[in-house]
Amino acid sequence: MDRIRLQRHPERTSFDQEDADAILDEAMICHIAFMDGDQPIVIPTAFGRAGDLLYIHGSPLSRMMRIVGSGAPISVSVSLLDGLVLATSAFDHSMNYRSLILFGDGRIVSDPEEKRMALDAIVDHLAPGRREHLRPMTDKEVGATSVVAIPLTEVSVKIRKGPPGRTDDDWPVWTGVIPMAQVAGSPVGDVPVPDHVEELIRARSGPNRSTS
Amino acid sequence: MDRIRLQRHPERTSFDQEDADAILDEAMICHIAFMDGDQPIVIPTAFGRAGDLLYIHGSPLSRMMRIVGSGAPISVSVSLLDGLVLATSAFDHSMNYRSLILFGDGRIVSDPEEKRMALDAIVDHLAPGRREHLRPMTDKEVGATSVVAIPLTEVSVKIRKGPPGRTDDDWPVWTGVIPMAQVAGSPVGDVPVPDHVEELIRARSGPNRSTS
Repeated sequence: MDRIRLQRHPERTSFDQEDADAILDEAMICHIAFMDGDQPIVIPTAFGRAGDLLYIHGSPLSRMMRIVGSGAPISVSVSLLDGLVLATSAFDHSMNYRSLILFGDGRIVSDPEEKRMALDAIVDHLAPGRREHLRPMTDKEVGATSVVAIPLTEVSVKIRKGPPGRTDDDWPVWTGVIPMAQVAGSPVGDVPVPDHVEELIRARSGPNRSTS
Repeated sequence: MDRIRLQRHPERTSFDQEDADAILDEAMICHIAFMDGDQPIVIPTAFGRAGDLLYIHGSPLSRMMRIVGSGAPISVSVSLLDGLVLATSAFDHSMNYRSLILFGDGRIVSDPEEKRMALDAIVDHLAPGRREHLRPMTDKEVGATSVVAIPLTEVSVKIRKGPPGRTDDDWPVWTGVIPMAQVAGSPVGDVPVPDHVEELIRARSGPNRSTS
């Protein structure tokens, strides 16, 4: 577990399962780092979760899926920006955030039942409550998609929240926090929008995403 | 330049400087991938830009700054989520996004003048228009910070926008796009808030960040 030891700001680090779950539920994308030869590559991608597994999907031909599915060492970052922290000096400016880093070894999901379940989890994550309204996936669609599972075991959470850590300088400038949040806007498409879409817009603009 | 060749969805890839600049201006964090021994690590961090250099900062003791500043191969992803794309089938669901991947070799910024300029660029990026109101950085503060420069030369941009690619299925479900944006909320701190803070809230909730 040495690789999840964080060297800076240990007070911002936790292994709290609830924090980790909240970050995974709220974030829409993760960033996966893997090696292609000697070159580290980082790619943003959608994901889903079922139990203690993180699932990603992609084309069976993609470099990411091939390498991440091979069991090679990888890491995954899931990050939420919560605020801009404005202090008296440039040095003390910061960001409020919740982020998670995961180390693990991915495996290609070959069992058809697990694969459908994983794809369902990815859709449920992108668009909560929508799946029951969709045309069921065809075998051809499932076959054209590759899925990789990554165990959510080596996880570390890092959180910064609250006001600037130091504002005791005798300098006349406003200090405080500008909350930042990712929010859903008005749907683009036919009107009226069905209830399940209204609900997923609310779900994707939850309490932490309010603009007010 | 082979390492910036993208294997999937070539129609989503561009090398347009304006797109790259817009992504770098709007995004608040980047994700950096580097190797620690055999382990790829991905870390979210703040950044700034000056000309064709990306600057990051951190503690001189941090693993990230040490490795990224050593000239070891790295990659950087800067990603903006613009929308949830809701299609007829789970398979055709997607996200609208603008993302950039950068490959490069970082170097520690040791010239004091460049270092101050880089730290200014990072503060200007976090909080546009605020720097002139701050207490100037002390030599001690500059000394306690490490800065790494990464050339913005090997950059590739990937963008998906617009409605679902395929909705011609004969299935009765609403299809369209739910715009997503990162927005700034109401400041947390003393009232009234000075003009420069009001302005930076607007700057950080630009046209692409409206919730309506």
